[in-house]
Amino acid sequence: MSTTTTTTINPKTASNLSFILNKPHDVAFVDRPKPTLQNEHDVLVAVNYTGICGSDVHYWQHGAIGHYVVKDPMVLGHESAGTVVEAGSAVTELKVGDRIALEPGYPCRHCEACLGGHYNLCPDMRFAATPPYDGTLTGFWTAPADFCYKLPDNVTLQEGALVEPLAVAVHIVRQAVVTPGQSVVVMGAGPVGLLCAAVAKAFGATTVVSVDIVESKLNFAKSFCSTHTYISQRVSAEENAANIRKLAGLGSGADVVIDASGAEPSIQTCLHTVRTGGTYVQGGMGRDNITFPIMALCLKEVTAKGSFRYGSGDYKLAVELIASGKVEVKKLISEVVAFKDAEDAFKKVKQGEVIKILIGGPNEKI
Amino acid sequence: MSTTTTTTINPKTASNLSFILNKPHDVAFVDRPKPTLQNEHDVLVAVNYTGICGSDVHYWQHGAIGHYVVKDPMVLGHESAGTVVEAGSAVTELKVGDRIALEPGYPCRHCEACLGGHYNLCPDMRFAATPPYDGTLTGFWTAPADFCYKLPDNVTLQEGALVEPLAVAVHIVRQAVVTPGQSVVVMGAGPVGLLCAAVAKAFGATTVVSVDIVESKLNFAKSFCSTHTYISQRVSAEENAANIRKLAGLGSGADVVIDASGAEPSIQTCLHTVRTGGTYVQGGMGRDNITFPIMALCLKEVTAKGSFRYGSGDYKLAVELIASGKVEVKKLISEVVAFKDAEDAFKKVKQGEVIKILIGGPNEKI
Amino acid sequence: MSTTTTTTINPKTASNLSFILNKPHDVAFVDRPKPTLQNEHDVLVAVNYTGICGSDVHYWQHGAIGHYVVKDPMVLGHESAGTVVEAGSAVTELKVGDRIALEPGYPCRHCEACLGGHYNLCPDMRFAATPPYDGTLTGFWTAPADFCYKLPDNVTLQEGALVEPLAVAVHIVRQAVVTPGQSVVVMGAGPVGLLCAAVAKAFGATTVVSVDIVESKLNFAKSFCSTHTYISQRVSAEENAANIRKLAGLGSGADVVIDASGAEPSIQTCLHTVRTGGTYVQGGMGRDNITFPIMALCLKEVTAKGSFRYGSGDYKLAVELIASGKVEVKKLISEVVAFKDAEDAFKKVKQGEVIKILIGGPNEKI
Amino acid sequence: MSTTTTTTINPKTASNLSFILNKPHDVAFVDRPKPTLQNEHDVLVAVNYTGICGSDVHYWQHGAIGHYVVKDPMVLGHESAGTVVEAGSAVTELKVGDRIALEPGYPCRHCEACLGGHYNLCPDMRFAATPPYDGTLTGFWTAPADFCYKLPDNVTLQEGALVEPLAVAVHIVRQAVVTPGQSVVVMGAGPVGLLCAAVAKAFGATTVVSVDIVESKLNFAKSFCSTHTYISQRVSAEENAANIRKLAGLGSGADVVIDASGAEPSIQTCLHTVRTGGTYVQGGMGRDNITFPIMALCLKEVTAKGSFRYGSGDYKLAVELIASGKVEVKKLISEVVAFKDAEDAFKKVKQGEVIKILIGGPNEKI
Repeated sequence: MSTTTTTTINPKTASNLSFILNKPHDVAFVDRPKPTLQNEHDVLVAVNYTGICGSDVHYWQHGAIGHYVVKDPMVLGHESAGTVVEAGSAVTELKVGDRIALEPGYPCRHCEACLGGHYNLCPDMRFAATPPYDGTLTGFWTAPADFCYKLPDNVTLQEGALVEPLAVAVHIVRQAVVTPGQSVVVMGAGPVGLLCAAVAKAFGATTVVSVDIVESKLNFAKSFCSTHTYISQRVSAEENAANIRKLAGLGSGADVVIDASGAEPSIQTCLHTVRTGGTYVQGGMGRDNITFPIMALCLKEVTAKGSFRYGSGDYKLAVELIASGKVEVKKLISEVVAFKDAEDAFKKVKQGEVIKILIGGPNEKI
Repeated sequence: MSTTTTTTINPKTASNLSFILNKPHDVAFVDRPKPTLQNEHDVLVAVNYTGICGSDVHYWQHGAIGHYVVKDPMVLGHESAGTVVEAGSAVTELKVGDRIALEPGYPCRHCEACLGGHYNLCPDMRFAATPPYDGTLTGFWTAPADFCYKLPDNVTLQEGALVEPLAVAVHIVRQAVVTPGQSVVVMGAGPVGLLCAAVAKAFGATTVVSVDIVESKLNFAKSFCSTHTYISQRVSAEENAANIRKLAGLGSGADVVIDASGAEPSIQTCLHTVRTGGTYVQGGMGRDNITFPIMALCLKEVTAKGSFRYGSGDYKLAVELIASGKVEVKKLISEVVAFKDAEDAFKKVKQGEVIKILIGGPNEKI
Repeated sequence: MSTTTTTTINPKTASNLSFILNKPHDVAFVDRPKPTLQNEHDVLVAVNYTGICGSDVHYWQHGAIGHYVVKDPMVLGHESAGTVVEAGSAVTELKVGDRIALEPGYPCRHCEACLGGHYNLCPDMRFAATPPYDGTLTGFWTAPADFCYKLPDNVTLQEGALVEPLAVAVHIVRQAVVTPGQSVVVMGAGPVGLLCAAVAKAFGATTVVSVDIVESKLNFAKSFCSTHTYISQRVSAEENAANIRKLAGLGSGADVVIDASGAEPSIQTCLHTVRTGGTYVQGGMGRDNITFPIMALCLKEVTAKGSFRYGSGDYKLAVELIASGKVEVKKLISEVVAFKDAEDAFKKVKQGEVIKILIGGPNEKI
Repeated sequence: MSTTTTTTINPKTASNLSFILNKPHDVAFVDRPKPTLQNEHDVLVAVNYTGICGSDVHYWQHGAIGHYVVKDPMVLGHESAGTVVEAGSAVTELKVGDRIALEPGYPCRHCEACLGGHYNLCPDMRFAATPPYDGTLTGFWTAPADFCYKLPDNVTLQEGALVEPLAVAVHIVRQAVVTPGQSVVVMGAGPVGLLCAAVAKAFGATTVVSVDIVESKLNFAKSFCSTHTYISQRVSAEENAANIRKLAGLGSGADVVIDASGAEPSIQTCLHTVRTGGTYVQGGMGRDNITFPIMALCLKEVTAKGSFRYGSGDYKLAVELIASGKVEVKKLISEVVAFKDAEDAFKKVKQGEVIKILIGGPNEKI
């Protein structure tokens, strides 16, 4: 790569302090070498805010998710917003100083999935904080410019850090092909479940039911976007489903059901809640194998889809939903802590004390 | 209904002898009252040939499938072809003497499913040999003319009786959206599994793998349409899936997998055989709940669909696939027996001695 | 048909006064025989309000639209809401006294289009006020119950009469597959153009541009729903398109363009305004043949679609968009006149003095 | 780029002789500098066979197509097959000596079109023999490995040169979403029209009608794939359409019509030949603006689509259609000439003496 445009960087931000997981329960702050642009399409981003995802906490606690195992020290975090501090020579859409939401993956751009418009399914994807790849709780991050989304003036950098989970929800709702006038039931009222409910509403769903086992989460859901809420009972999936259908006036079933919980009883309830010919999307992760009402899927001719991360257009739409006020992500931000307090933040997420906590820095906003 | 066109009916066919299930294992031949046209859109059909479906045998053995319970004596059979003997005044596409394949259901035509093009999902569907509705192992059957499909000259009435199971397969393959060049794996090499494989090939699939536990069925599959066959081993679903992928050169997985078996291990194998971003369709019926690899569906972003009976355009295409020689259904016909031997025919199907057995009559071809 | 539920009808409404077109410019009020239920699925509706459509005015002026020619006296009108006064024995969803929006067509329910979910394309459709079929400016109308849509309590009968043009717009926007975050340009700011713009917005479009030649209409559009408006200039289609793209910040083009004008220059502008890979829907009727930029369609790989009337689900969604407040159709109602003043109302529409005028009656609300 | 695998190249092929258009009617053979790999994903290909496209001839005659103007000398040709002679370090799917069909474009891989799976619509595409970019009638060509498609053993390099026009046809037929059992009418029986007809048949179309003004072309079409042919008459488009519908038993119209001619009367005939609810794809290039039956599109709710080059999966499927014997492209090869006779070959194409002529070399097969 030849010439690049740079700017004077605030000396305070010149370090590349990173929050690193050595092994389960063993984290550290290490000043890693500052990354450099890999090619003329890249920008260098000073990281300003990062949210904590359940997967980050899971790695911190267990050192692995499925067959992804942390073998070497790995930087955590992947829900970040930051500021462009250097731009490659081929970058035209961004310039130094731009505030951006960061899409934290590097697809190969050469495989069938990438060429076919499904880069989230790229088998060679290198994804932040998924071993062996480092995450974004660091000072600087290089990214291809097309994976950095400029924030409109009315969207803050803190909101920008919420674009990542919102993009997850956008992808789920797009997989479900929610259209205006539909009824949508969302299992789980954690951050992704709440955002799915909000996105479904923004897509025109007129009935949006949030289901969880924690009443306080459902109260928040109602204030946030849901038209109905239901506390799962210790009864059969069929009975919970019947209750949901009755409560929300769904007749013979919901047009769309989304599982954002990963919990076996919730998934079973999904299949009994969806209407004949309806759609069910599995968005939450849980056990590899569960007891599943397969005949309900078959006889009701349900369309079931998995949803994995986010892909073409999802980040762009997520930014737009925030900018237009259709999804008020800032309501999800329970607290913002300093970079040095990252471990405390992880503890709070683990204890379920917060909806979404942001870690500021390590770089100041420029 | 006003005027109708009728023809002189062969006296031999004037009876309406019907093969009736009184209760499990208790069948009888009864001469039921001959039906009459219900409205000006109907035709009266003399039934000439009827195939036996697994569901017929199941009712005969158990008196019920799921919540469908035979309470009163019910005529069995729903895979029929016959000859038009009377046509309502509004019927323009058919005339007396036409040889037809019979679509054996009456949708309501007024519900959202019907108006939306999914009459197979009509909650008020009255379907042949599904209690409490009588089936087609009878002398005469009234049907709306648009549910009777004229057989081209090069399609026999015996082939016409195979249109029903072929339409089941067409619907499954359409649910799977099979396109040219794809790889398709079909679990089960019974009549529907074989027909799914053949239809997938007719849709342009270049790799078609049939999987079963019975070697003779797979040998037939190979002679019928499949490019590869695999005998399921007593190993894990993952291992069977890996074997299938290797055997058929599927790389990271098949574009489409279809379960036409209803068996739990087969369904599990489906999810491990399909590629990332691929499609799985559940066509076979089995247990209500099974252990299911839900995370494979989620992480590979699989599209899973149920398939229930057949709908708009399926019968028409099935007839065309036979007429064009693309699916040689006559190869499936193991034997044709007289109407009086219907119970024997059921026994042979139960014992797995045949692929497809046809019951001739009770009416002769006119 | 056997038993039906009836109610005491207000004597004032016992007549079946109808507004009839004898020949161009020659209308009359005639008391036609009151219709009766045709079968057990029908309801009898007392007509309360009817809007006037451009096609009604065209018949009044010219006696024909294309090959539809008024040969015998024909009742005008097809945008109606009314009250159920009698219900057939098979009707379960409606009862006497229900206020409904009337979908004014009778598809055959037996053709491929009907069975395939596209009854609006039924070749045997009998449609109100399309010769030789009578329209709804009459006292009583029989309709199949599934073509009568119950109005929620918060939707008035006057708004109910607007469901028909709103359903036209819903169908157009659905043909365009508008999704959240998109940019949509609508040519024409008459009732259908305005409703297309409003529906596109309700579907989540973030940029909605209305284009017309009349400034006052565009002022209304802006107050009603549009984010941008543009007065067409007497310049080339390319230049108008470039202006629209610039004005609305559409970059290389709009995701979706809709022509609701039927005017040749507008259609040409559509093709130059849409982005590469975008969608154009032709909703307005005009000349049979026009000069058309076919290479723009080809090289930009545009998807172009016609839109004809409305079909499965369109009325239901239209009612929901009104009930939810997403489309405020009542703002379009310029005036409500008495039935006896129907001809005056037609004159006002012809002179372009109003957006939408409603004719009350001939029956009072019960 | 670091290490690459190379092979000893035949000295005879060491030159990079190129067939260059200086200006209209002025061509020359020039030994250009041999290209080198641009990055580790590239391969270097020795060009073995190249077909001549109508666009090549058009540049040769006119020096421009639309706003693409040849200002500097440009290598012609873009329908090529060749042999890999060098592979970048990141290339895993190809090795030196592999015989490949060459997809002759370089999309940017970073824009919305590329990320969304539509790289053929990339605004920054650099495409062979489209000014200012050189074509493939040259000794060596560098291409990203994922744009080189390995030929199976049973596909020759001469057939490999036909993959490009076949991919054009595959893209057109995919735009049309042709499914089994459909009727397809193709206007034009030049190479692309013939290939569209053959691909439509391979996709399962049961009626395939070729239309042209030259009888000999239609005779070839019939021997190649078409079920019916029609010589366009000097009558109205409506009349030609009625003739086609009658001739091919299409009833009220064809499911799909494809224009591969670019001629105004053919396009008009398309719109009158397609059935209500059918699909029309514009594949051929012609005049920018034509008289177009827009109301036929609107009232019949036709879906019209442009088709531009080829994209994700098209080359792969084209190779498979050849390998499986479903499209016998070799029948289209009228003649193969030596590289030194390239200008003569262009003359023959211009005079319409051939279906497809191939230019061998400049490199021998290794």
